[in-house]
Amino acid sequence: MEHPLRQHLEKIIPLTDTEFTYVLSHFTTKKLRKHQFLVQEGDTVFNEYLVIKGCLKAYHTDSDDKEHILQFALEDWWITDFQAYFNQTKATINIDCIEDCELLILSMENKEKLCNEIHGIANFFRKKSNGGYVALQQRILLLLNKNPQDRYNGFIRLNRLLVQRVPKTLIAAYLGVSRETLSRLSHP
Amino acid sequence: MEHPLRQHLEKIIPLTDTEFTYVLSHFTTKKLRKHQFLVQEGDTVFNEYLVIKGCLKAYHTDSDDKEHILQFALEDWWITDFQAYFNQTKATINIDCIEDCELLILSMENKEKLCNEIHGIANFFRKKSNGGYVALQQRILLLLNKNPQDRYNGFIRLNRLLVQRVPKTLIAAYLGVSRETLSRLSHP
Repeated sequence: MEHPLRQHLEKIIPLTDTEFTYVLSHFTTKKLRKHQFLVQEGDTVFNEYLVIKGCLKAYHTDSDDKEHILQFALEDWWITDFQAYFNQTKATINIDCIEDCELLILSMENKEKLCNEIHGIANFFRKKSNGGYVALQQRILLLLNKNPQDRYNGFIRLNRLLVQRVPKTLIAAYLGVSRETLSRLSHP
Repeated sequence: MEHPLRQHLEKIIPLTDTEFTYVLSHFTTKKLRKHQFLVQEGDTVFNEYLVIKGCLKAYHTDSDDKEHILQFALEDWWITDFQAYFNQTKATINIDCIEDCELLILSMENKEKLCNEIHGIANFFRKKSNGGYVALQQRILLLLNKNPQDRYNGFIRLNRLLVQRVPKTLIAAYLGVSRETLSRLSHP
């Protein structure tokens, strides 16, 4: 079976065997148990992570100790504190594991090296980032929609897989609705 | 004075005179009056636009005819229906001018051509998109914050220029709060 990284990259760009072996040599791996932290507020963030197995959540805790979920990540998704990573500032969010996880790690240094050396890799990340941008715009429109039923339906439409694997309490924190509202919506 | 496109690109990548002249030859220009549409729902979207002068808004109108503002764009910002543009689907939003505008137009075809020919340009758009991604994540955290005062303060902190140029009604539609709430917040 092809390496999951190769499958992931080849959804956007073709790679020769030699190129793929070279690209792969710039990644390391990490395994984390359910509830372990990948990133904690205040950390310096040198890496981004591709999920090979498992599920994670990135969240900000406000002054009332309430969790606001910024992002989930399942297999084939990238996750990190992107603000801290791109701007080389301290992490302002936490990321921990909802399930046991296997991750591929790419450091900023190796990413820039690969992007400079292999044109296809630069294009891969450019297109991946464009896709992520559009997904966030869609989520903003969901959040601006004041009708919780429409908000929930829109979420289901965009995230069928997540709904089956993520506890309801976390989906409520992602949608910005109360746990009670979510229960009402998901069992109409 | 240097061309605004050159100033814009050189914030991220250096370009020789020859390279810049070549890059510029792939752009065209457009002028629009206040209230004119740049993109309308249902359009096919072939281009993205860099604002040279003026201010625009991108918005979705819901079934109750309520405007939800997805994005503003001032000088030095890019705007289009990114979903329609990247996925080559029909526009689902409208974009019109809050002020008279001058725009630089880049077609998808010319963008891909430039990204394939000039490594620096591919890197420019990759990094630009990363920056945009982080800004949208920040906005999502603002929208998840239930305290309208914190939401407004966060907006002010991130968008000092916009506040001076965009009518309050539109800022309320961007923040997902009522016009009355916004007035109360901005004149405490």
